[in-house]
Amino acid sequence: MQRRDLLKSATFAVAAQALGTIATSAQPSAAQTPTSKRLGKIALEEHFMVPEFVPYFEETYPNISPEIAKLGLAALLDLGDHRIEVMDQNGVDYSVLSLSGPGVQIEKDTAVAVKRAKWVNDFLSKEIQKRPTRFGGLAHLAMQNPAEAASELERCIRGLGFQGAMINGQTNGEYLDLDKFSVFWERAAALEAPIYIHPGNPVDHPAMYADHPELWGPVCSWAFETGTHALRLVFAGVFERYPKARVILGHMGETLPLNLWRFDSRWPISHRGSMTLAEPPSFYIKRNIAITTSGVCSDISLRCALDSMGAENVMFSIDYPFEKTPVAAAFIENARITETERQQVASGNAKRILKITRPIGPSA
Amino acid sequence: MQRRDLLKSATFAVAAQALGTIATSAQPSAAQTPTSKRLGKIALEEHFMVPEFVPYFEETYPNISPEIAKLGLAALLDLGDHRIEVMDQNGVDYSVLSLSGPGVQIEKDTAVAVKRAKWVNDFLSKEIQKRPTRFGGLAHLAMQNPAEAASELERCIRGLGFQGAMINGQTNGEYLDLDKFSVFWERAAALEAPIYIHPGNPVDHPAMYADHPELWGPVCSWAFETGTHALRLVFAGVFERYPKARVILGHMGETLPLNLWRFDSRWPISHRGSMTLAEPPSFYIKRNIAITTSGVCSDISLRCALDSMGAENVMFSIDYPFEKTPVAAAFIENARITETERQQVASGNAKRILKITRPIGPSA
Repeated sequence: MQRRDLLKSATFAVAAQALGTIATSAQPSAAQTPTSKRLGKIALEEHFMVPEFVPYFEETYPNISPEIAKLGLAALLDLGDHRIEVMDQNGVDYSVLSLSGPGVQIEKDTAVAVKRAKWVNDFLSKEIQKRPTRFGGLAHLAMQNPAEAASELERCIRGLGFQGAMINGQTNGEYLDLDKFSVFWERAAALEAPIYIHPGNPVDHPAMYADHPELWGPVCSWAFETGTHALRLVFAGVFERYPKARVILGHMGETLPLNLWRFDSRWPISHRGSMTLAEPPSFYIKRNIAITTSGVCSDISLRCALDSMGAENVMFSIDYPFEKTPVAAAFIENARITETERQQVASGNAKRILKITRPIGPSA
Repeated sequence: MQRRDLLKSATFAVAAQALGTIATSAQPSAAQTPTSKRLGKIALEEHFMVPEFVPYFEETYPNISPEIAKLGLAALLDLGDHRIEVMDQNGVDYSVLSLSGPGVQIEKDTAVAVKRAKWVNDFLSKEIQKRPTRFGGLAHLAMQNPAEAASELERCIRGLGFQGAMINGQTNGEYLDLDKFSVFWERAAALEAPIYIHPGNPVDHPAMYADHPELWGPVCSWAFETGTHALRLVFAGVFERYPKARVILGHMGETLPLNLWRFDSRWPISHRGSMTLAEPPSFYIKRNIAITTSGVCSDISLRCALDSMGAENVMFSIDYPFEKTPVAAAFIENARITETERQQVASGNAKRILKITRPIGPSA
């Protein structure tokens, strides 16, 4: 696809609609803190796009109105000065970048998926090398071939210096709790590489969403789909078998933090066949799942997440460019939490979980 | 079905499994407060069963292991001394009773559904008359015929003195936001009768739950199904058209309280066709939806619910006999909330929302 065609594409309207206008996204927040009190932030659900991967995006998110596609496209394609300017004006020291989904996860040809995943990881690596104090990366993986995905994860972590991987929900209808993915979890655990499970659409269209297109996506279905995906991992015993496996969920935990008590209460009496767990579900959720604040700038929800998941498991993120950086930055700068919690959420937990040890930030 | 057969039935294992043992459910809670500080409670997701409605229950919840069915059956069938004893020992002044679902909502013959709904409402009315200071009622309705359901709701509220109605999710695949149900919402709003939307199974089995029977039910799918049902009402404008319509959701709000900010943020950019709302989604959620604590005895979740929905919209409930009364009672007696909030949640909000004006409690 030519860049000219891309600019006319309907694809990026989702991004652009969410952005409002990209022109304002670099503005300082109303509640911006003085430089002397600057809160350095790491953000880790921050997306980019390359023209070669637009058709995957378009196949999954059709029926997008085209009018403001150009603005969203510009934000996603930009890995340079504008993105850095938005970060600087909002105190974001470091953005861990990931390809906007679903990417090769919907590629029918596994060999092509494997090849293109490597290609986009190499592309991202080169971009990171240009600005190593500002950008990190999450690997894009062809989950059609779990062993190959495990190898590519290792290459990205050990060879390219990435911080983890992002997987966009199910792959060909298969969720990550299936036995075939054990080879992947074993490697991820050995590498201590966190796996960000980002929302994707399921292969079916559940009846509860019928005739309600507004529920299909970030308003509702993505949270339920992704929260369920995480619970599948818990109940299938993935975290029991691989205690060092770590999943990251965005959007304040995809509804899970509110219901830990209920999971623990109902699991022992559920119709679980031969499934067993040595510990209550909440044990694995709190040990093996971390969450980000992407897309939920609410003090109330943050308080619930901190208390439910543990303050060491909650990390700031923006979901750029689908969410507004100034809004997210002002939220974490002014949230009614302790200063210790603010430091943990803004950067401390991300440094530990994503093993960010290099100097970061505009003055690094 | 004979009572003898019923006792051998697999049907009530769900209840019994959830109960633990009914023998212990009347025990005072470990943290029971002294009589001088007794917290009078109203509970409103409290179930009963009659032998005639067992086949509906069984059709929806098959594959239940039979071993302890007898215990659950006893608890559901009992509308007498044992139920009152459990209430008394745990400070429950008043239980608003509802038939354990799905009842006639899955009846194929609409005329039969209408007739049997009236019958069970009359049955419940007689039970309430025996103990009017201890029992209230939610109407059981044949939603296959919305106009008839509206009339039966009015009969139950005005004629039988019930406090509202309970609907167990979709009816023949139809959710309550469809235009055909406007006649029902108009009447419910005019009566100011709250409609408790209790979980039920959808007509399909979404792919995300495949091969995970433990997710199908109270662990996961019921919350997502019921939360979605409520959002359908919001986005279809039911509450905009009927400002006095009121829905009650159990289980700490079926995940909604955590995501109000996200609903407001994503709704304006969702693919919503011709749907419009004058106010943000959270406006209608807070004005028209109240929630109960049934099945979620967590201080963290309660704090989130109070702050998110407003303290005037959260009501204590147990989900008897599927949840343990002593656990739920001890939870609300000792929750880390203000004493004003405790009074609101324990009984104040229920008195207002369910219009409970008669004297209630063991000494009334």
